[in-house]
Amino acid sequence: MTALHAALAGLELVDHPVLLRQRSRDFYWYSPILKRQLDGKAADLIVVPRAVEEVVQVAAACARLRVPLGVRGGATGNYGQMVPLQGGVLLDMARLDRTLWIERGRGRFEAGARLEAADTLAQQSGWELRMFPSTRRQATVGGYVCGGAAGVGSVRYGQLRDAGSVLALKVVTCEETPRLIELRGADIGKALHAYGTTGIVVEVELPLAPAYPWIEMVAAFEDFGAAARFAQALAETDGLFLKLDSLMAWPLPRYFRGLEEGALPEGRHVVMIMVAVGGEMGVMALAAEHDGAITLQRPYREERGHTPLYEYTWNHTTLQALKVDKDITYLQTIFPPESNVAALIASHEMFGEEVMAHAEFQRRLGRTNCSSLQVVRYTGDERLWEIVRQLETLGIKLSNPHSYILEDKGARVPSADLQLAFKRQSDPHGLLNPGKMSRWTA
Amino acid sequence: MTALHAALAGLELVDHPVLLRQRSRDFYWYSPILKRQLDGKAADLIVVPRAVEEVVQVAAACARLRVPLGVRGGATGNYGQMVPLQGGVLLDMARLDRTLWIERGRGRFEAGARLEAADTLAQQSGWELRMFPSTRRQATVGGYVCGGAAGVGSVRYGQLRDAGSVLALKVVTCEETPRLIELRGADIGKALHAYGTTGIVVEVELPLAPAYPWIEMVAAFEDFGAAARFAQALAETDGLFLKLDSLMAWPLPRYFRGLEEGALPEGRHVVMIMVAVGGEMGVMALAAEHDGAITLQRPYREERGHTPLYEYTWNHTTLQALKVDKDITYLQTIFPPESNVAALIASHEMFGEEVMAHAEFQRRLGRTNCSSLQVVRYTGDERLWEIVRQLETLGIKLSNPHSYILEDKGARVPSADLQLAFKRQSDPHGLLNPGKMSRWTA
Repeated sequence: MTALHAALAGLELVDHPVLLRQRSRDFYWYSPILKRQLDGKAADLIVVPRAVEEVVQVAAACARLRVPLGVRGGATGNYGQMVPLQGGVLLDMARLDRTLWIERGRGRFEAGARLEAADTLAQQSGWELRMFPSTRRQATVGGYVCGGAAGVGSVRYGQLRDAGSVLALKVVTCEETPRLIELRGADIGKALHAYGTTGIVVEVELPLAPAYPWIEMVAAFEDFGAAARFAQALAETDGLFLKLDSLMAWPLPRYFRGLEEGALPEGRHVVMIMVAVGGEMGVMALAAEHDGAITLQRPYREERGHTPLYEYTWNHTTLQALKVDKDITYLQTIFPPESNVAALIASHEMFGEEVMAHAEFQRRLGRTNCSSLQVVRYTGDERLWEIVRQLETLGIKLSNPHSYILEDKGARVPSADLQLAFKRQSDPHGLLNPGKMSRWTA
Repeated sequence: MTALHAALAGLELVDHPVLLRQRSRDFYWYSPILKRQLDGKAADLIVVPRAVEEVVQVAAACARLRVPLGVRGGATGNYGQMVPLQGGVLLDMARLDRTLWIERGRGRFEAGARLEAADTLAQQSGWELRMFPSTRRQATVGGYVCGGAAGVGSVRYGQLRDAGSVLALKVVTCEETPRLIELRGADIGKALHAYGTTGIVVEVELPLAPAYPWIEMVAAFEDFGAAARFAQALAETDGLFLKLDSLMAWPLPRYFRGLEEGALPEGRHVVMIMVAVGGEMGVMALAAEHDGAITLQRPYREERGHTPLYEYTWNHTTLQALKVDKDITYLQTIFPPESNVAALIASHEMFGEEVMAHAEFQRRLGRTNCSSLQVVRYTGDERLWEIVRQLETLGIKLSNPHSYILEDKGARVPSADLQLAFKRQSDPHGLLNPGKMSRWTA
């Protein structure tokens, strides 16, 4: 590594083996399969750039010396998105974290800015992020757009890949003379959700939503079907402005710690909700129509030591269960449009408590649909894939969380083609996060 | 009327015959059929209350003396909603126009407050009305919730009748001893869109949306099908926060005056758009995908002498055409969910320029759909109903704008039942806007 060290002179480097191992991991260990595959993988050197120019310096060195190059945001991904499969250099973006500007309806951030910091700053001007992952407190803006897909807010604002969800990305290419490329419009797809395989995202411009005061609510139901129909009807009620609509089948709520007494009644399926202030009565009336009861209602607030409702939802649901029971893993699935509720109910009846239904309601392609992060009692790979096959008979498709391969997440073909074509120019030596894009490897 | 005058002593009264006729009219004359039926109908006396107590005084007097009692807001309705069919007293709400309070996400207004004033005040606190009719500059808050259904904003926030779209209504009953009743939750349906037949709405509490900076855009298309598919796809793009998505077939744009040179190219079908700032590139890319071009892009602003884009849309479309051509009328129709675009294209092909397609895209029951206010070259009633029958073969249903009967607007049965039951208590003598609710008359 002498030539590399020389080329990186003046930069902040980390090469202690313990730190290298620690900082080369994300939350892939939710998956027993990924755990086997990725445990022990680590970068050979971590660089902590403080300016885009330093990212350019690293990219040039890696291109010249043919060293693999990965990027680390908050390391909150669940699929080993940032785990270096072939060692090399890992850029830790923690210091590239400035908010460049916030104006009415838009903000621009360096990739390493934490979502929490970005959101808080935006709120000070009356704005907020349209959507964020349940890892809002740890994740970075860049990590979210490179490794995420949707989140808290998607019930109204849709997916990250929808036109308008990201306004611009600035990427550094991995060439001997790296270029800075500003992507806008449809070109954003070249680097969005590419796990950093097509360029190093250094700046992100996001649309901001006006900041609502949000109310957190939990609705509880005896009957799972009623809970599922309520969650769908709630998302379809355009008069209620929502940020969260998450359905959890009993006994999932049994794993949740830290909510108010009585919020999660024994044996009840629950729907966790964030609604803009003023919508409380509308939610309550709709819950009553579905024989449900409101068991929690409180203003949303961010405070150290206080767990917001969204930290029980999305990928945090599995985490909360894993804190209590290590024999748990999860699936991630996409539902058939229009018949998603029927499929959800059928899957709940098919597996009972072995596959605990957990669905996140969201807008997808203009429809109300849900995706599911089912929590599964893990008894072996064979049974896990058998469950997947049975779900498929209900029209429920896997978006495989047990794979670190980009294309296994169900990327649409046009977007995968676009990324492959862009990678030929932006990473001619195939050094960026190697092994993740199967089309490149093939 | 001596006893009535005595009972109304101290109130501001209007009884000059010319003023009575002028102020008893709305925009029903869009319809040649309503024009024949309603021309000449007028109140016998107009009262201009300055406080809710004065409304109570009038209601008590009318109940005791069995005098019909109607309410006038901005008189911008199109179906004779406020036209007194049987004379009597008309309450002109123009002086009951205070904004009671505005707080984060909510505002409460006296019924006679103009939407423009309410919206402007809300904007000063960073909020705005979620939706308004194209008559925003003239219409009142009370008139909108009593006689309106949707409007500019419905493409994201749905219909007025959706849970959460109205937070509370305060109504005065028409009894010898009138009661003040606060309606919340599902009870709002008792007075919402009831044309004032079930109570006199004196206060309205509305949810407010955070105020976005909006951009007005026009996209123009050679092919009508492409324009229709674009308008639907635009509404379905959850990443673009929209306020308006209105499709007008050529030659409708020929009637529009006052837009910038080149905004409405000869022979082109257009889509009029309001999108939150930052979404311009997303709209542009989507238009290009559909072989369309952006022909206007400017910030939305309200200024005397400047016509905002929304004043070419919704019910204003017909008005703009009527300013140029008196032989025009219109229809109002609802489209089949899921196949609305196909039905729209088929209807355009069926009639050509005789029935100029005009569709307002909106959320309805959680789906993207459109309603249409087709502009029709009127050649007689018989042909008009023949057109309606032919539209019905395409699954396009009439929401009859040529009738002043409440139920002809396609009220859902549960809501009509609720209103009838409430009217038995709130208007036992059947004096409120008599002749409009056919279930009561029957």
